[in-house]
Formats: sequence, C-alpha cells, structure tokens
Amino acid sequence: MDPNIIKFIIFYIGVLMTDKIKTAVEMAKEQRAISVAEFFEKNRHLLGFDNPTKSLLTVVKEAVDNALDACEEANILPDIDVDIKQLEENRYQVTVEDNGPGILREQIPKIFAKLLYGSKFHRLRQSRGQQGIGISSSVLYSQLTTGYPAVIYSKPKAKGKTHVFHLKIDTIKNEPEIIKEDLIDDGMKHTGTKIIMILEGKYIQRYHSADEYLKQTAIVNPWAHITYKSPIGEKFDFPRVINKLSKRPKEIKPHPYGVELGILIRMLKNTKSRNLSGFLQNEFCRIGSTSSEEICRLAALKPEDNPKNLDHKAQQNLIKAMQRVKLMRPPTDCLSPIGDKLLEQGISKEINAEFVTTITREPSVYRGIPFQIEAGLAYGGELKEKKNEEGKSDQVKVMRFANKIPLLYEPSGCSITKSISSIKWRRYGLEQSSGSIPRGPAIIAVHIASAWVPYTSESKESIANYPEIIKEMKLALQDCARKMLRHIRKQTKVKRETERLNIFESYIPLIIENAKELAEVKTKIDAKPIIDKVIKKDLIEYGKKR
Amino acid sequence: MDPNIIKFIIFYIGVLMTDKIKTAVEMAKEQRAISVAEFFEKNRHLLGFDNPTKSLLTVVKEAVDNALDACEEANILPDIDVDIKQLEENRYQVTVEDNGPGILREQIPKIFAKLLYGSKFHRLRQSRGQQGIGISSSVLYSQLTTGYPAVIYSKPKAKGKTHVFHLKIDTIKNEPEIIKEDLIDDGMKHTGTKIIMILEGKYIQRYHSADEYLKQTAIVNPWAHITYKSPIGEKFDFPRVINKLSKRPKEIKPHPYGVELGILIRMLKNTKSRNLSGFLQNEFCRIGSTSSEEICRLAALKPEDNPKNLDHKAQQNLIKAMQRVKLMRPPTDCLSPIGDKLLEQGISKEINAEFVTTITREPSVYRGIPFQIEAGLAYGGELKEKKNEEGKSDQVKVMRFANKIPLLYEPSGCSITKSISSIKWRRYGLEQSSGSIPRGPAIIAVHIASAWVPYTSESKESIANYPEIIKEMKLALQDCARKMLRHIRKQTKVKRETERLNIFESYIPLIIENAKELAEVKTKIDAKPIIDKVIKKDLIEYGKKR
Repeated sequence: MDPNIIKFIIFYIGVLMTDKIKTAVEMAKEQRAISVAEFFEKNRHLLGFDNPTKSLLTVVKEAVDNALDACEEANILPDIDVDIKQLEENRYQVTVEDNGPGILREQIPKIFAKLLYGSKFHRLRQSRGQQGIGISSSVLYSQLTTGYPAVIYSKPKAKGKTHVFHLKIDTIKNEPEIIKEDLIDDGMKHTGTKIIMILEGKYIQRYHSADEYLKQTAIVNPWAHITYKSPIGEKFDFPRVINKLSKRPKEIKPHPYGVELGILIRMLKNTKSRNLSGFLQNEFCRIGSTSSEEICRLAALKPEDNPKNLDHKAQQNLIKAMQRVKLMRPPTDCLSPIGDKLLEQGISKEINAEFVTTITREPSVYRGIPFQIEAGLAYGGELKEKKNEEGKSDQVKVMRFANKIPLLYEPSGCSITKSISSIKWRRYGLEQSSGSIPRGPAIIAVHIASAWVPYTSESKESIANYPEIIKEMKLALQDCARKMLRHIRKQTKVKRETERLNIFESYIPLIIENAKELAEVKTKIDAKPIIDKVIKKDLIEYGKKR
Repeated sequence: MDPNIIKFIIFYIGVLMTDKIKTAVEMAKEQRAISVAEFFEKNRHLLGFDNPTKSLLTVVKEAVDNALDACEEANILPDIDVDIKQLEENRYQVTVEDNGPGILREQIPKIFAKLLYGSKFHRLRQSRGQQGIGISSSVLYSQLTTGYPAVIYSKPKAKGKTHVFHLKIDTIKNEPEIIKEDLIDDGMKHTGTKIIMILEGKYIQRYHSADEYLKQTAIVNPWAHITYKSPIGEKFDFPRVINKLSKRPKEIKPHPYGVELGILIRMLKNTKSRNLSGFLQNEFCRIGSTSSEEICRLAALKPEDNPKNLDHKAQQNLIKAMQRVKLMRPPTDCLSPIGDKLLEQGISKEINAEFVTTITREPSVYRGIPFQIEAGLAYGGELKEKKNEEGKSDQVKVMRFANKIPLLYEPSGCSITKSISSIKWRRYGLEQSSGSIPRGPAIIAVHIASAWVPYTSESKESIANYPEIIKEMKLALQDCARKMLRHIRKQTKVKRETERLNIFESYIPLIIENAKELAEVKTKIDAKPIIDKVIKKDLIEYGKKR
C-alpha cells in the first residue's frame, strides 16, 4: 500500500480515538501519581519563583535563612558570606557560605535535593524554615532554568575533611540524583556549609533585591555578621552589634486548645502510652494529673482506658472535654523574640532617624500556637519629609518580619499591612488616606515570632489574617505611635517656644532703651547677659519640663 | 533511691540535653521526610480551608468541578445534584452526585484519598481540575475536622453494580486507608459517582456561599443541569439552556517557546526517539521536518544525533535554537471557551438586565501555553442604580471565571481585577475612583480558558498577573465597554428626545388654537391625530436611525 495512505489511515484512527466518548476504563489508564517535585516544578510561582527578579532574591533568602537557622541551632555566632556573580545576561551564580555545624555526608543529598525533607516541620519551635522545601526548591529552580546541579561543600568536623556534592533532583521521583561526590581537604579551621547555585535571574538595586533583604536581615539579626558582594561588584559589610545569640527557643508539645479531631485520632492511634491519663500528660503541654482527670470526667471516660480503643463517639467527647477544661496558655520558651532593645539598636544602626521607639509585647496564642509581636517606629532625621506635586508626603516605609526573616513581597494580603492600615494615624501626627498606609517621614517595622508562622503561601511572603495576631500587632503599633506623638508634640512645642523667645530676644534691647529712658539712666547697658540669663535659661527649663 | 530524686535527675538531664550545643550528628537525627498529605494538613489554608465558611464552599466546589469534568470528558450532558445538610452547629454533610462515567474500583481509593494523584496534571488540555489535589484535599479536611471517612458510590457500568467505599487518608504515608468496601445493587439505570463528606463548616447565604458558586457555575456551564438543596432547606434548580456540550478540548504537546531547559533535559533523557529530528517532531507541537532541520542547523547539531547523548553545551544550544526559529502558535483546539452567544444566554438567564453584551477573543499564548479570554457586561434593568449617602453608586459586581469555574475569593491579587481597575471607565459612562473597580448599575464577567491556568495558589482563587493575559482581558473589556457606552448614549438621547417632544406635544394644542385664530377657522380641531402623526412618527424614526 502507498505509505501516504497508511499514514492517512493512522492519522484518521488517531482522530477517531481522540474524539471518542471515554469510559471509566479509558479514563483509568490516564490516572497516575504526581511527585511533589513535579508539582512544584510546574507551580514554581507558589515557591517564590514567579519572575527573574524575585527568583534571584528567593534563592539568596532560602540559603541565608538556612545558614542562620543552622548556626543558631548549634549555638554558633553566625558569619555568613553571600556572593552573587553575573555570568550571562539573565544568568547568575549565587554562593552562600556559613560557619554553622555542617551537615553529615548521608544527610546532604536529601536536605538539598528532596522536597519536603527536614527537621523543622514536625516540631513546635520557632525557626526560620518550617516546611522543608526552601533550599531544595532553590536547587530545583536552578536546574530547571539552567540545567546545572547545585554544588554543596559541607564540613561537619572542624578538624575533618570537607564533603563536596554535585546534586540534582530527580523530579519524577522527588529523590536526589548525585552527579559527583568528593572528599577534599580545604584547610579551613572551622565547621560550615557552602552552597553554589547557577540560575536564571535578574538583579535590581531597588527595594525587591538581595541588597535590601540582607540589610533588613542585619536589622533583626544583630548577632549575625554578614558580608555581601553584589553582582555589580559592590561590597557590603553588616557587622555584629552584639556578641551574644538571642535566647534559644525550646521545643514544646501541642496545646490541647489547638489540636484538631483528625490529629487527635492519629495521636491516639500512634501513642506509646497505655492509658488515657498518660496519653494526655505525655503528648500535650499544660496537662497535669488534675487536668487529665478533669478531662476524663468531662468526657465520661476512664483515665485507665486504652487510648487505642476509643470509638469515634469517645474520641469526639475527648476533644470537646480537652477544649472545655481550663488550662494554662502554652509555654512561650519555644519563642525567641529579638527584644525591644536589640530591635532599637538594629534600626538605629541602619537608619539615622531623630527618634526611634520599639516594643516587645507579651506572648499570645492563636489556634493553640504561641506567638509574640514586636514593633518599631523611626521618625525624622534622615527620613526627611518629601512632598509630591499634590503636596502629599510619601507613604512611610514598612518593614515586615516573621521569625527574623524580612518579607519583601506581597504586602497587600499581609496581616501586618492590614494592622497598620487599620490604625488612625492622623491622631498620632502622620497624614493618612483612610484605610491606607500612613504618609510622613517615618519607618514602621513589625515582627512576628511564632512556633508556626501562618504564611499565606509556600513562598512565605505574607502572614494570614488571624484576629488574635492582628489585635496584638495593633496594640504594639499604637504603643509606638503614642510615643512618636509625644515626640512630635514636644518637638513642635520646642519649635514654637523657640520662635516665641526669639521674638522676645529681638525686643529686649528696645525694652532696655525704654526702661533706661523712664529711669533716666544714661549709662550703656549690654542686652546680651540679660538675654542669656532670662530667656535662654527659661528655654532650657522649658525643655526639661517637657 | 528516692523516686523523686530519680525524676529530678531525669528532668535535669533533659534540661541539659535541650540546651546543649547541637552538632551535625545530633541535627541529622531530627531530619525526616514529610508526606505531602502532612504538609497540606498543616497548611490547609493553602488549599482553601482557611475558615469554616470558605471550607464548606471549597468542598462543594471541588466535588462539583470534578463531576463536571468527568461528565464532559465522557461526553455526557451533566446532571448534578448537590445537597448540604446541617448536622450540628458547625458540622455539615455535603453530598454531590453526578451522571458521569463512574470510576473503576481500583482507581477509587487513590483518586479520593491520595493527594497529588490524577489524570489532568501531566497533560496539556483545558479542564477544571489540573493539580490532582482538589477532591482528596476535601476528604483530608473532612477527616481532620470531624474524623469521618468520605463515602464514595461509583457505578462504572450502566447495567453493573455500584462500588461503595469508606475512605480515609493515611496522612503520614499519603496513601488511601480503606475503612469499608461494598458492592451493592442500587437499581440506578445509568453510570455515575456520588460522594458524601462530613466536615466542619459554616453556611452563609451571602456572596461567598455555595448558592452563589452554583448560580455562577450555571451561567458559564449552560449545558449542565444542577439541582441544589441548601442547609436551610431551600431548593434551587438551574436548568439546562442548551442540549449540547461545548466543543471538547484536545490534548496538545508542549510548544517549543514555552519549554524550559530543565524540562528539555529530562525530555531528552526519557525520549523514545532515536534521533534529534524525530525527538523534535514527536515531542513538540508545531515542529515539522523543515523547522526541525532549521533548529538543528541553528544549534550546530546533526538531525541524526542521539538525543540522549547531547552534552550540557549542546542542550543549551538546542533550547536557544528552539526559541529562535519561527514557528506557528500552538494549536488552540486544546481550549474550549464558552462562546459569546452562550455566555450571553447564561448571563441573561440569571440577570434581568436591560442590556447585555459579550465577546470571545481569539486564542493567545503565554509562556507557550494557549489561553483565550471571554468577557461579558450587563447594564441596567434589575441592576438599578443605588446611591449611598455620599451620592456614590455601588461598585459593579465582578464575576471571575477560570476554565468555567467561578472564583469567589481573593479578588485583590487577581489579574481579572487588575485588568478591570486599569480601564478608565468614566469614558464609558460609569463612575470610578482612579485605579478602582467602577461604580454603577452593571455586572462585569471575565472568563479565562487555558490548557494551564496560572493560579496564584493551590486553592485556585485568583489568576497570576501575566502581561499577555492582562492585555487580552483589557481588550475584551474595552470592546464590551464601547458597546455599553453606545447603549447608554442612545438611551440618554432617546430620553432627551422624548422630553423635547413631550414639550412640543404640550404646545401643539396652543399652536393649533393660534393657527385657527390667524386663519379665522371656527371648527374644532382635534390635536391628537396631529401629535400622533408628526411627533410620535418622528420619535420612532429617530429611534430607528440610532
């Protein structure tokens, strides 16, 4: 037969097949599992890889966040070096090196080249990373856009050798693919980790850049020493402000108020406790023997019941009882805030303002999870008021932080933005269109520290709108705003008083002349000592009183 | 030893352990894999389960979207029954039943109780589902909040029996857990699937409800018949407007312009083609023998080269060549728009407006993926202008759709909202504060149909801001806006003309009297026929001309 006819027949069968009605049998053939790496490869914008500018920032951010976490967990004052080199028009090489504890050889491939792998997801304790996808997604993005493996150097013993891995991700399996492995002697004296990635990106010097991210990181991590070489060759050094790490957060158990029925059922099934009383006391925080008995009584269960044998009704009664009994709030030593003093030092170091105030609120709880809000406000000084053509000032700059990470993208949906916009800033001396970010010569910073930050997406760019969180943020901001208002008022009064006294000053010689005439004095009187004594002193006293 | 002393020692060792400096060895012990089910259980807000109201809607939405997809894929006119019952204060039972093709016994557990499993992720073709997590995440949410398994009835053969499964998800493994399995004879005459889930939720009648979601679904799926019983006992029937399914979309291969290096490398590695020329022609659309030769020439490669043997440099040259060669746009038969006429019928059926206009734009492409924009505008009629205290009208209602799914949440980040806000609506006869949604008696609807809709999150609530997509949306909206403006102008002129003629009308008897006097006529003259003849006719003619 003519090969063209055969081709035509095959083509026609194809057409028929495609248009045929599908049955369950045919549809079943198309069903298959999707690996989480494939999923995020196709949905990489969910991880912060929407566009080249943001992607470059995300890669730097994930590597630096990991480095800071590792150092702090090992109680090492962080020394972090960041280097971004431009290789081609849209291609960059990012290197991040730390003096952390290093990573064991066996763990290196999975930590860097398997999505959803890590130590932070299953525990309740404040850390920058919490999902186990940050650094591996950066490796995924690098290989997707440039085809290059990530290169990792890791030295887990100060006197040992350094492991070198060239790693890719087998996306169909979501498993590491080791391209090359080496053991070298680099002569370095301390432990540490270094990662090098080559990726498609775009460097800008404006707000959404690694420059800004590292500057803000230095503000909220004043115990870290960070050096940075930008793609255009600029060198930055963010020195340490303090030689002591912040308080190390401790791991806590879940609080009964925050647990959901599905989770409780799983815990009951997997527990090692042989009776309900032990289960309650061992697997949750804030339950002692009294409250455990109380819970059992409310649920009409016996403390000696086997937790694995509860039926669905009993499980439901148990969770209701757990939520009805009066318990202490969860312990807050799982948190590690920056502290108001250090936050103030951090802000003052980077911004030369005329007035800075900060506050660290007491810890609070949302859905059983402890969190703590800190806020800072800087006013005036180098933040001079600029008016636009319509006579309006610029919007104040907002710095958002979560677990000591600066958040640079997606401000609009964030509870920090929402809290700021909901305050009536005109009362506190700033301009504001209702429901917007205020305008004026100020900077507002808000930090949420939490054992589990409720981000609105995997890319960790904004905080979900929990009412408990917004309330705490507003209280912190109002406190700062009141102090700023006092400062502005005082400043305005000092200014007015000075003006008033300046007028007096220019009249004093005239008064003296008139007085002389009335008293028929002929000698010359010097006005200066009088001015100094009467007016300047008055002014100083006035200033002291305020 | 005193047990209390032992307790104290144990406690003290614990304290020491927790505070000890961690080395790489200790940190390694804490590392482990996270299942994707655990990940989404903890991050359920990413899937649309932020709060009880939204969760109830999401469960209904995922089940109905799946039902519609299944029916259309099997070429069956959809008959879908939705029933929501309130069981307790915050507990609801959702039942969704369809007349689709049913699901084979072996597939049921994985489709409903394994996240990231499905037929739609790996192909390029328009469908409602695309990620393989929608319905299984609803099952996950149900078991998390109430502990109940989902119950699935599936009948894959019209004359066969019905499979009944009670399913939970083993979240630690992300695998189905079959609680109970049955085979029953329910006497039903057609194939189909039914799912029952019990979950924590909250029902409201306002905008963000199943009521609104189903109403909007009926607008953009006029070939579907949907019945709905709400938790407060109201019964809704959305009948079919047309007895024919829309054009069935076909699967296409990826377009060379949209492929990324990492994906190309994987395709080269896994291909069955033995030479480069075959690889290019078989695995991509729009590459024939001529363009395949051209690509090889540009990349300095031979058409007979083995695709598996290309080195990194060759792979890079290949992708650059693929993107430089001139190719046709991807085929657009992977798309299935609603069509301007059906969209108009759909809108008119649900909204009694005085003017409705719609448009279906030609298909376009973003990142190598075909998409198509449709828009509709309804004006006046039951959409009466309401002014608030400040004399401003209400904002127009915006209906957003993606692949025939209504999007009810997260409008602010969506490219549809962005497109609407960026148009100067004052030019088209609506009020508007600059950069906002316009105000007035109108409804705006926008639909994006695409082989892969770029959602900003897994919960599929808003569309990412690709410039190509925004451009098409604006062009569609401006077209509708121009037609609306013509209508408003015509209406205004008709109104003015009527007023003018009404004035004439009232003067005509006077003119007649004066004319009579001048002509010295004594008989009575009836003004009515003159009015009718001269003025009414004039008015009609005027109306026709416009």
